[in-house]
Amino acid sequence: MSRNVTVCLTPELIHLEDLSGKLVIVVDIFRATSCMVAGMASGIQSITPVATVEECLTLKSNGYISAGERGGVKIPEFHLGNSPFDYMQPSLKGKKIATTTTNGTLAIKKSAEADEIVIGSFLNFSSVKDHIKSSDKDVIIHCAGWKGSFNLEDTTFAGGLLKELSKELSFQSDASFMACQLWEKSKEGGLYNFLMKSAHANRLAGMGIEKDLAYCCQLDEFNILPKIVGEDIITC
Amino acid sequence: MSRNVTVCLTPELIHLEDLSGKLVIVVDIFRATSCMVAGMASGIQSITPVATVEECLTLKSNGYISAGERGGVKIPEFHLGNSPFDYMQPSLKGKKIATTTTNGTLAIKKSAEADEIVIGSFLNFSSVKDHIKSSDKDVIIHCAGWKGSFNLEDTTFAGGLLKELSKELSFQSDASFMACQLWEKSKEGGLYNFLMKSAHANRLAGMGIEKDLAYCCQLDEFNILPKIVGEDIITC
Repeated sequence: MSRNVTVCLTPELIHLEDLSGKLVIVVDIFRATSCMVAGMASGIQSITPVATVEECLTLKSNGYISAGERGGVKIPEFHLGNSPFDYMQPSLKGKKIATTTTNGTLAIKKSAEADEIVIGSFLNFSSVKDHIKSSDKDVIIHCAGWKGSFNLEDTTFAGGLLKELSKELSFQSDASFMACQLWEKSKEGGLYNFLMKSAHANRLAGMGIEKDLAYCCQLDEFNILPKIVGEDIITC
Repeated sequence: MSRNVTVCLTPELIHLEDLSGKLVIVVDIFRATSCMVAGMASGIQSITPVATVEECLTLKSNGYISAGERGGVKIPEFHLGNSPFDYMQPSLKGKKIATTTTNGTLAIKKSAEADEIVIGSFLNFSSVKDHIKSSDKDVIIHCAGWKGSFNLEDTTFAGGLLKELSKELSFQSDASFMACQLWEKSKEGGLYNFLMKSAHANRLAGMGIEKDLAYCCQLDEFNILPKIVGEDIITC
């Protein structure tokens, strides 16, 4: 029997999936998982996602670098915001980061029962794809969405992965079909232009982070596979 | 300020919406709301959606015609299944029907806090569109989905409505954008051929109900607007 891959459109729907024994790919393109991939590729030792600002501040007081946002805006007491460029500073090499974000952290927490949790983004697209191909597990692509709702960028990423996996894995759900349609559509004018039509890109547009968004749309900047081990994101 | 229309992809996400004061369009193309529209247009007096088979059997013992399905299959003790042709029998004119279905009934029940609940399908597409245009309320298109998950046919219907409403109502969510993409895509090879790619059409394909599915894809068979009043669907 062939392996299956399914797409979960938001953390609000993950309870419909049986996570046991599964490989879960968590994706929050704008910007949490893109930050995590960029940071781990730049030499950060570990990233610890936590649910609340308070937990993040506690870890900060224990020597962690604090990072994250609420509503797309950096939290004033934190060292870093939620830009991939924040995470790529040379001074962070070997450091431990604690982070909390609106959507990505929740998707990670809600994936806890999976056998394996991998951090996905366009920045490490082929690393994720190759890992899925070499695995023997069924796969769930867990889109972080936006405050519980569907979003364009995470589902388009899922569609891209599905297209690359169509020979090795089977998928029949309407969410998978729709994700593939979005990926195909994104090719017409280019991925960046397509994702600039997303509601989240429009929300973030007034915040002067266009270069963040453009960077998050780059494919295969890094050959790296951050994974959740215990409470932390590390690279194996 | 312009009126808003949003798309809720499944009843599992309706708690993210504030229903108070809203006009909700419930849609379950394959086949619950298509049946309701066909039945009400054929002279049925009222349709009472209930959550369980047991409730439906209780109403049956009180003189109602019982109808519905579980997993796409007619319930043996019921008079009718879940085919629009079942609902259009001349002998049902003036009769009261009690019905329970996998997805459509749930979407109706979960819309209860709305100011107004209308039954939508391709069969009464323009009636729904015209009613929305003449209303002064914000609108939520509540897709019944499939066991809590996104489905293709209900969201494509939502996309079609949005396209017709783009001058009068504003919509910015990614779900709306995606729904419009699906509607546009469906025009390439025709609505029926597009929706035959859906997982639910494939699930139902072995059950010999191809003519049901084709009928549910017909636009504007009826000029009728079934609404929920109290516990019942009636036409005003």
